[in-house]
Amino acid sequence: MKRLLVIGGVAGGAGAAAKARRVSEDWEIIMFERGSYVSFANCGLPYYIGKVIEDREELLLFSPELFKSRFNVDVRLNTEIVDLDRKKKTVTAQGPDGKTYKEKYDKLVIATGGRPITLPVPGADLEGVYHVFTVPDADAIASRLEVGTKSAVVVGGGFIGLESAENLAARGVKVTLVEKLPQVMSNMDPEFSEVIIKELEKLGVTVLTGVGMKAITGKGTVKGVELDDGTKVKCDMVVMAAGVRVNTELAQKAGLRIGETRGIWVDAGMRTSDPDIYAAGDIAESVHLVSGKKVRISLAGSANKQGRVAGANAVGGNMLFKGVLGTAILKVGGLTAARTGLSTREAEELGLDFESVYVPGFSHATYYPDSKPIIMKYTVQKQTGRLLGAQAIGRDGVDKRIDVLSTAIYGNMTVFDLENLDLAYAPPFSSAKDPVIEGGMISANILRGEMQYASHLKLSEYLADPDTVVLDCRTQAEWDMGHVEGAVLLPVDELRERYKELSKSKTYVVYCGVGYRAYNACRFLQNKGYRVKNLGGGWKLINMHKGM
Amino acid sequence: MKRLLVIGGVAGGAGAAAKARRVSEDWEIIMFERGSYVSFANCGLPYYIGKVIEDREELLLFSPELFKSRFNVDVRLNTEIVDLDRKKKTVTAQGPDGKTYKEKYDKLVIATGGRPITLPVPGADLEGVYHVFTVPDADAIASRLEVGTKSAVVVGGGFIGLESAENLAARGVKVTLVEKLPQVMSNMDPEFSEVIIKELEKLGVTVLTGVGMKAITGKGTVKGVELDDGTKVKCDMVVMAAGVRVNTELAQKAGLRIGETRGIWVDAGMRTSDPDIYAAGDIAESVHLVSGKKVRISLAGSANKQGRVAGANAVGGNMLFKGVLGTAILKVGGLTAARTGLSTREAEELGLDFESVYVPGFSHATYYPDSKPIIMKYTVQKQTGRLLGAQAIGRDGVDKRIDVLSTAIYGNMTVFDLENLDLAYAPPFSSAKDPVIEGGMISANILRGEMQYASHLKLSEYLADPDTVVLDCRTQAEWDMGHVEGAVLLPVDELRERYKELSKSKTYVVYCGVGYRAYNACRFLQNKGYRVKNLGGGWKLINMHKGM
Repeated sequence: MKRLLVIGGVAGGAGAAAKARRVSEDWEIIMFERGSYVSFANCGLPYYIGKVIEDREELLLFSPELFKSRFNVDVRLNTEIVDLDRKKKTVTAQGPDGKTYKEKYDKLVIATGGRPITLPVPGADLEGVYHVFTVPDADAIASRLEVGTKSAVVVGGGFIGLESAENLAARGVKVTLVEKLPQVMSNMDPEFSEVIIKELEKLGVTVLTGVGMKAITGKGTVKGVELDDGTKVKCDMVVMAAGVRVNTELAQKAGLRIGETRGIWVDAGMRTSDPDIYAAGDIAESVHLVSGKKVRISLAGSANKQGRVAGANAVGGNMLFKGVLGTAILKVGGLTAARTGLSTREAEELGLDFESVYVPGFSHATYYPDSKPIIMKYTVQKQTGRLLGAQAIGRDGVDKRIDVLSTAIYGNMTVFDLENLDLAYAPPFSSAKDPVIEGGMISANILRGEMQYASHLKLSEYLADPDTVVLDCRTQAEWDMGHVEGAVLLPVDELRERYKELSKSKTYVVYCGVGYRAYNACRFLQNKGYRVKNLGGGWKLINMHKGM
Repeated sequence: MKRLLVIGGVAGGAGAAAKARRVSEDWEIIMFERGSYVSFANCGLPYYIGKVIEDREELLLFSPELFKSRFNVDVRLNTEIVDLDRKKKTVTAQGPDGKTYKEKYDKLVIATGGRPITLPVPGADLEGVYHVFTVPDADAIASRLEVGTKSAVVVGGGFIGLESAENLAARGVKVTLVEKLPQVMSNMDPEFSEVIIKELEKLGVTVLTGVGMKAITGKGTVKGVELDDGTKVKCDMVVMAAGVRVNTELAQKAGLRIGETRGIWVDAGMRTSDPDIYAAGDIAESVHLVSGKKVRISLAGSANKQGRVAGANAVGGNMLFKGVLGTAILKVGGLTAARTGLSTREAEELGLDFESVYVPGFSHATYYPDSKPIIMKYTVQKQTGRLLGAQAIGRDGVDKRIDVLSTAIYGNMTVFDLENLDLAYAPPFSSAKDPVIEGGMISANILRGEMQYASHLKLSEYLADPDTVVLDCRTQAEWDMGHVEGAVLLPVDELRERYKELSKSKTYVVYCGVGYRAYNACRFLQNKGYRVKNLGGGWKLINMHKGM
């Protein structure tokens, strides 16, 4: 009987082992897991800390016993693979007793994942410093909360950091979140970060960006942290959520090809440079379906799919993992923030010629109760109209729009496709023109030359330019409630009577509430021979930094 | 100055007029509307009746005054076009005073929509018989409810009928819904209808299917209805929601080409057979993007998009309307039912070789609170794996999945694409394998030959066949709570020990709770040389008719 060894028993490894068994009964399968649990819900850990998930059992999706009875997979917990000999086709395992032993393989799947980064600062080894990465991590934090933790510093403004901050705050802990970068959720554009920060502040979290942690203070146990700028923050607990380092040491030592992303190089069948070895999950590279470049993504969705492909192919299957779009989503308070494809920064880094298009909309028809605002931003390739990426934030229906846009990007669709999509409309769910379609229409209008586009991020430039006038085309009542200082008011519904007040030697940057009235004003003025630009997203975008 | 006339001022017509103006200031635009309102939210009318939408003003999206000030469109309300002379390029309008007059056109957009069918039964003209089609219709019903209506019969189990039944019930009216066909929501497969009916019953609505209305009884005012089978139902009100007839008479009389669907024939630019005349909305044909055939769809989303294209092109634009997928969605009680692409019946009528695949899933990770079941059904082309259609029902997240699947169908994607989609996952929004992806995996497994598939709709055939054994692979505890009469119990986790109890001369139709354990059981048995089929959706599907 041939033998498959799987190193790692969480998303990638567990998926590989189960799929391999479904493909074949002719293989012996052994799965090694360094930790004490296999196949647990790592994405649920912050919510277990927050008691949103109350039953710890919910986190444990599959037990070693079940792997045995259902899949005839021999699971070895608390066992680390310390060596890999590709010539002899053996691994060296170190079991819970510390003793090492060798196991032979015919095929091997490496799904060793990553480990959370412990920042190299003084005090990092104090009691009260935690990661949120494993079930024991969550258990430790939960226990500490029971004995009355009053304040915490969360280091890192990525998914785990933001979710941990929210959940600790929900437990009544005074939380300070510290992020070294100038923004949180750095895989989205900065304006989204500002909205997320406002929401965190509503939850009582203090957010400090652009500053790193210099030291953790305390004797034996955490008393506070000291930041790069000298600020001292008192706290009883530190959660380090400063990212994950992938466990490629074994692969590297064994001479497997490491890719440009520092992940293990694999082909579309998840085969490494050694035809008898497969890789899946955080450690494996993927192809980005928009850029065509290799990327390394640490997300459960890809890990599951990659594991399935690796497991099947290792025992004779023939499956492909096509690639990723970097789709990701975050709940923070009542907000949802999500992204797919290329952000502005990523598109810039690739040197692409693109337009960023803002799409303000609502979760469903505004005349039906409880519709909630959504702001989206499309990254659109100028020459082709291809949708390269999308970001969105809002209080309802953000996940739907990002999933639709992710599917559209997967299908290489253009904004001319988006304006034609046949999405489901009834008042409780959407609008006759869903925001996704509306975004397609706005983008297509820009690409067809029907609309010149201006960005609220450049508002101060427009105001400073003597040849440019910022024109507010809302009503007097709206103007009185607040407007751009230095703008001129000319309501859209007076424009047909009064447009001759304007000058053909100026450029008018027109804004309204969200961009729709300004679009009509711009079309009118353009048809009359004036130079105009629509300030995408209007007053709503201008005020986006105040939260939503 | 050239002149554009638009006949019809709701979704298609209003969109055409506004878009035409945005494209050009060089045209005079007149829009004729037979009713008293333009651009109103017809999809909101049932909810206004139910007081879900409390403010009547919310229904009125755009006034004639606004059309004038913003778009310089001359709106003529209560004005019907009674004749069209294509040679002279004139229409004859009949205004609110009953007098007729002619107007010349250079280009014409016909968006006359439809009118609700009044069934030709005795009593159809009694006071208390309503449609739900216009704002005055809704006003009339709302007034009648104020004076104390106790009971109503709703005739027709389509969108308007179902939404009206729910909303009348919400107002405390005892509602009986009568549908001549054997099912409600007839653009979905019958098993979905059963779930919808159970939900309506929970709302207190009595549903009678497979029976038509013979007469409405009463003198002067409605007292009851009499059905084809002789049943008499007392009621104070009848809502006729028996479909819509399109207003093509004008176009037909003028000799415009009428298509096979009895709608007006148009090209992808919404041009009719007369190059100076365009059509949009309910009266215009569309191309179905899966079948390639012409269809006629009465939905707001398409009407809006078609109107935009017709209006732009009429005044010199160059836009395309690519087609439809028949995407539609219904809220009934706490349930959402939705569909896109081809249903089973439609795929059968086209003679396609397809598999119907059931996909039971949850709105989001089950370990995160409030996840709700969803049942989907994919129509998958056997040879290519192309997704032809999808239907879904559930209590949360159905709209998202149908929109994703609609986008996938638009992009000609296969189930091999679906299993690779990069959808947004965090526990509050989805699962690591979203149901859409899971459905792709199940379908792909079937197409790759990894799984033989059986349908719960054929369960009685399997039970009657002496060569077939229905095998329940759940636990004893689940079996004790209810199981298929005539099935045999063999829990999946005992299968590896006990499989030799089974016979290689039989076919085993294996079921579990939703299909996942049965899939593992089937893979094991198939690898051991047994003949097996997985009963898709398992116990959940078998019990689907009991509601969800």
